[in-house]
Amino acid sequence: MEGVLLGTQFQNLSFKAILTPQSLLVLDFRGFGLERWLVLELAPQLASQSHSLPFEFTALEAILQHKVNTLHAQLNDVEPILLDTLESLVDPKILSVDRSKLHILLQNSKSLSELETDIKVFKDTLLKILDEEEIIEELCLTKWTDPRVFEESSLGIDHAEEMELLLENYYMQAEELANKTRELKGLIDDSESVVFINLDSHRNVMMRLNLQLAMGSFSLSLFGLIGVAFGMNLESSFEEDPRVFWLVTGFMFLGSGLIWRRLLSFLGRHLMPSVPPLIPQVWKRNMKASDIRSGIR
Amino acid sequence: MEGVLLGTQFQNLSFKAILTPQSLLVLDFRGFGLERWLVLELAPQLASQSHSLPFEFTALEAILQHKVNTLHAQLNDVEPILLDTLESLVDPKILSVDRSKLHILLQNSKSLSELETDIKVFKDTLLKILDEEEIIEELCLTKWTDPRVFEESSLGIDHAEEMELLLENYYMQAEELANKTRELKGLIDDSESVVFINLDSHRNVMMRLNLQLAMGSFSLSLFGLIGVAFGMNLESSFEEDPRVFWLVTGFMFLGSGLIWRRLLSFLGRHLMPSVPPLIPQVWKRNMKASDIRSGIR
Amino acid sequence: MEGVLLGTQFQNLSFKAILTPQSLLVLDFRGFGLERWLVLELAPQLASQSHSLPFEFTALEAILQHKVNTLHAQLNDVEPILLDTLESLVDPKILSVDRSKLHILLQNSKSLSELETDIKVFKDTLLKILDEEEIIEELCLTKWTDPRVFEESSLGIDHAEEMELLLENYYMQAEELANKTRELKGLIDDSESVVFINLDSHRNVMMRLNLQLAMGSFSLSLFGLIGVAFGMNLESSFEEDPRVFWLVTGFMFLGSGLIWRRLLSFLGRHLMPSVPPLIPQVWKRNMKASDIRSGIR
Amino acid sequence: MEGVLLGTQFQNLSFKAILTPQSLLVLDFRGFGLERWLVLELAPQLASQSHSLPFEFTALEAILQHKVNTLHAQLNDVEPILLDTLESLVDPKILSVDRSKLHILLQNSKSLSELETDIKVFKDTLLKILDEEEIIEELCLTKWTDPRVFEESSLGIDHAEEMELLLENYYMQAEELANKTRELKGLIDDSESVVFINLDSHRNVMMRLNLQLAMGSFSLSLFGLIGVAFGMNLESSFEEDPRVFWLVTGFMFLGSGLIWRRLLSFLGRHLMPSVPPLIPQVWKRNMKASDIRSGIR
Amino acid sequence: MEGVLLGTQFQNLSFKAILTPQSLLVLDFRGFGLERWLVLELAPQLASQSHSLPFEFTALEAILQHKVNTLHAQLNDVEPILLDTLESLVDPKILSVDRSKLHILLQNSKSLSELETDIKVFKDTLLKILDEEEIIEELCLTKWTDPRVFEESSLGIDHAEEMELLLENYYMQAEELANKTRELKGLIDDSESVVFINLDSHRNVMMRLNLQLAMGSFSLSLFGLIGVAFGMNLESSFEEDPRVFWLVTGFMFLGSGLIWRRLLSFLGRHLMPSVPPLIPQVWKRNMKASDIRSGIR
Repeated sequence: MEGVLLGTQFQNLSFKAILTPQSLLVLDFRGFGLERWLVLELAPQLASQSHSLPFEFTALEAILQHKVNTLHAQLNDVEPILLDTLESLVDPKILSVDRSKLHILLQNSKSLSELETDIKVFKDTLLKILDEEEIIEELCLTKWTDPRVFEESSLGIDHAEEMELLLENYYMQAEELANKTRELKGLIDDSESVVFINLDSHRNVMMRLNLQLAMGSFSLSLFGLIGVAFGMNLESSFEEDPRVFWLVTGFMFLGSGLIWRRLLSFLGRHLMPSVPPLIPQVWKRNMKASDIRSGIR
Repeated sequence: MEGVLLGTQFQNLSFKAILTPQSLLVLDFRGFGLERWLVLELAPQLASQSHSLPFEFTALEAILQHKVNTLHAQLNDVEPILLDTLESLVDPKILSVDRSKLHILLQNSKSLSELETDIKVFKDTLLKILDEEEIIEELCLTKWTDPRVFEESSLGIDHAEEMELLLENYYMQAEELANKTRELKGLIDDSESVVFINLDSHRNVMMRLNLQLAMGSFSLSLFGLIGVAFGMNLESSFEEDPRVFWLVTGFMFLGSGLIWRRLLSFLGRHLMPSVPPLIPQVWKRNMKASDIRSGIR
Repeated sequence: MEGVLLGTQFQNLSFKAILTPQSLLVLDFRGFGLERWLVLELAPQLASQSHSLPFEFTALEAILQHKVNTLHAQLNDVEPILLDTLESLVDPKILSVDRSKLHILLQNSKSLSELETDIKVFKDTLLKILDEEEIIEELCLTKWTDPRVFEESSLGIDHAEEMELLLENYYMQAEELANKTRELKGLIDDSESVVFINLDSHRNVMMRLNLQLAMGSFSLSLFGLIGVAFGMNLESSFEEDPRVFWLVTGFMFLGSGLIWRRLLSFLGRHLMPSVPPLIPQVWKRNMKASDIRSGIR
Repeated sequence: MEGVLLGTQFQNLSFKAILTPQSLLVLDFRGFGLERWLVLELAPQLASQSHSLPFEFTALEAILQHKVNTLHAQLNDVEPILLDTLESLVDPKILSVDRSKLHILLQNSKSLSELETDIKVFKDTLLKILDEEEIIEELCLTKWTDPRVFEESSLGIDHAEEMELLLENYYMQAEELANKTRELKGLIDDSESVVFINLDSHRNVMMRLNLQLAMGSFSLSLFGLIGVAFGMNLESSFEEDPRVFWLVTGFMFLGSGLIWRRLLSFLGRHLMPSVPPLIPQVWKRNMKASDIRSGIR
Repeated sequence: MEGVLLGTQFQNLSFKAILTPQSLLVLDFRGFGLERWLVLELAPQLASQSHSLPFEFTALEAILQHKVNTLHAQLNDVEPILLDTLESLVDPKILSVDRSKLHILLQNSKSLSELETDIKVFKDTLLKILDEEEIIEELCLTKWTDPRVFEESSLGIDHAEEMELLLENYYMQAEELANKTRELKGLIDDSESVVFINLDSHRNVMMRLNLQLAMGSFSLSLFGLIGVAFGMNLESSFEEDPRVFWLVTGFMFLGSGLIWRRLLSFLGRHLMPSVPPLIPQVWKRNMKASDIRSGIR
């Protein structure tokens, strides 16, 4: 009775196991979540021998399914937190970013890249087995040890091919997880760009307001200087004329108002580019260009 | 009568189907858009047996065409919105970015990466089939089940080769979609850079204006201090001279004006680099360098 | 007399053609630039049968050459504009970026990625043909239809090998274009970084000037408060002493000057890091580290 | 007696060695750490011939183990420093970044990419050997020089296969190191983004405070102008009315307070986007879209 | 007497050459550095026929060595300038970046990517030859033209294998150059990030100082308004009380001082996040998470 040692092929399983046509010997397991799984889930699953397929298929499927489930569970842990955090980060109402959110983002981003590595290792393992016919044949223990089983097989299905389909199925599931992870990573990047644009945009708005106020303050300082001048204890010969007070006061207020208005309108013109009609044609001009180009293809 | 199960090879179809030389059994479909397509489009298409090719070709072509059409429709949904949004984001007139546009960008960017994954999975599926001669042969049901059909074929065309051309055609269409998607992604990245440069540029312009105003305010404060000094209820011995008022007032206004002008010209010189003649030679110097280099190749 | 349909192998040609050992049937062409090329250039080129090689070589070479020329022309359109635009964008004298330049950059960047896709598709097409011996053999029509031609060939050169060299030559030209495009893309990225550093740098310079002015204004406000205090219509008992005016005025101006100087020197110290001697050793320390490391290799 | 020259296959070992079935001749070693290893560790390890495997396996394993240990030690040097530095850089409490930390980051980031190259070269070397059956056979010196050893082997294990497993084991260890390095690089990138968001966020908070103060100062200037006006040595006809002093003073303070409050509330409204109810649906809307999309797959 | 045309295989050599077992015909060379090399170095090197290997090996080795030397020299030109420039750019003492340094960086970054392309093309060329046994055989002219030479070879070494080792050696040297180039590019990217963080950090420090000064100026304005109020030519009934002057003056200065202190402490609290104890657990929490995860593997 021969068997194969799993754990050389599947290097990111958390245990080693010897798989024989009749039994699965789990040798060396680490991590506290596993014990429960081994006793409560794996054992009954293998015991219920209702499958028409040999034992090694059932055992291998149970192990691979458990691995994929674990990866899926990890992704499901990370994904909603990430989406929530990104959702609140890209919120355009916020002026400054909540830093505890940033820490959650960083943490989950780290978890995500660890998960990505895990999935990559799992995929590479499966791919390596799928690439070598020989290893697949080796995994089909029943056929290997007892050739009659295969011949007697009423369905006429090749065990090796069956094993390949089994492994391919899990490969495709891992691929799907990898795609999901990559999409999440892309979403994080895009969201970060949006956060930066948002923050920059807020800053520009505040800076314009600041500039408008600075213009106002400047106007007031400029015309306030007239008031300061008349406040000097020096003889200006206007002291006794009662109309001059109102004249100068009015000039001060009106003058600063007018100067401010001019400065604001100057600001408005200054921030506007000088060649607006030429610019909106970007894509349209390219449209034509691509027409021409597609004609050359 | 044998058949193949589609859905193991084409894993991102939304249904499973058994394809036999005479019929297509759609087994397990999800999504509400499909029912309409199955009844209204697929059925008549398969019924109109005007093709000289066997049934399985017609069926497979209909399914692949539908998949490519769906992907194309999704891209056509996303592309114009993205182009419009980017167009309005890179508009140089804007000082701050409209955040609802950013949300639309983020949404469509997400849709685009999901679409990218979809196209990638479709391409991978086709590529896997194209890489294995065996699966292509398997898909040519008519030849497989009835070898005489092939021999009688007046055209002398190999069915397997025909199938390969069919699949390759759809692969190339998927590739084109993938290229389009990648170009769009690149355009988003480039536009984001332009948005950042635009915002930074606006900020610099505003900061220079702010600085110029700060210089003005500083000058006014400096010379206003003279006015404040003369406004003190202290004896300066100039109180009675009527010319002093005009002298000091004039000095205040002229002085601040002159100081401001000096500060502005200092700013102009300060922001200008000290070595202008050495710099514009960047590319030209490189031109020579590349001449030398190309000589060494 | 047999022929091959070009356009299945060369999917990004803008026309379909049937190539026979004696003639080239251009079937289905789009785009207005092509007609002129077909009539004025391709026809005479094919007519001048001065080549010792069979007709299909001449025809294929003409078509591939035309495609490469087109790609080259497109690159030559985009490259100088891009270099000029980047040159003016990275100009360190500019404080804010000319936005029309940014639009030109964005447009040409888009054209560049479309060109990149085009080159990639062309390269993939050639690579696919080069990878399959069979297709190359098929393209050698003369040999294929008339085996005696090959045997009589005095040069003893294999037609298929000749065809391979021809295709490889154009592949290498396409590769060179792809390299050029990639370098341009890299240059755009690098220039954008430089633009950002330039803008940030300008901003920091302006902010420091602003801060220095704010320090001056603060000093003037602080000591101006003394003047304001003495300007109050309240009895300070110094009113009659003529020296007090000069004392207080002098104190105000000197005080603000001194405080400003202190603030400026504080700013100078504050922006200087506290541990300068430890830092310039970055690369040198690494040098040693890499010595040790290279010893371990 | 034949031998192989290590150092042609393993190009990033720091020594050359001739491996024969009985001895290991270390030819050409550089670096001071090696001498100690050769004498103190390698020699006893090879002397204790307790292994059932031939000498060349023991020797090769010792060398590969040493290389992997060295790479691991280098990673263990860099990793904790990097994590500590990143930890202190992403600290949300900091307003400005400690630049000595940045230097440590840059140094270790450089070391990390050098380590990455090292691991890559080691992996490539192993992969090249694993890809060519021939080289593996060559490395199995005992079998090669003395075929009887193999035949007599009681275990019936193929030496070449054993060698492959040995090399694969070290390849997998190198792969794990490479994954770890890539994760660290990703963590550095993510942390830098967080640092930028943190700094930008702080800046926005400060700018808002600055803007609020500028609003206050503007209000005070505006209403202070009234005071300045009344401070002028001009006749306003209110001089003798004692209530006017309190009226104007009250108006100045209350007025600036009210104007400030209005400006602040304007700022609050201005920074808030106008369409809040439409935006939080980003992911939810996409959820639906992905439902539809998954139905099409 | 047969020969091979170099320059079809080695497409980025700057000359074409016909290599025969007895001579090397350099056909078509461009670039002025080459002539000197051909006459002064290549000729003597080929003349000194001290090698036991056939002529074509000596010639090919000389050409490849020259190419590698050229690439190495180019890297050695670029590397120290780049390291110096980056060293001075990441200097934390600088507030604004020296723009001439940026231009040097941009220039050398461009040279580096051109060098990268060069190395890539050289590597691809060698790889293509190494991948096709046939071309290697073709390059071994002596064996090819004169089979007895090979048989008489006392060493019993296969010429083709020798040629492969020769080419592999240069491939590995090119690979090393490529790794070096990639590391330099990574260093440029990392340094740019550090430059950005440095500039941002400086800006935040300056902005905080600016904000602190704005707070001071605001306080002075606020309490200066009291002074302005008492400076009005209105009757406040305190005019005659000598203590009021000192009271109000003291209140103005003390008040602005106190308000400033409150504002500064408010700023200090405002920039500090509210939840400090929860955040430093980022990596530690992850440590646990990775423990759990590693248990699942």
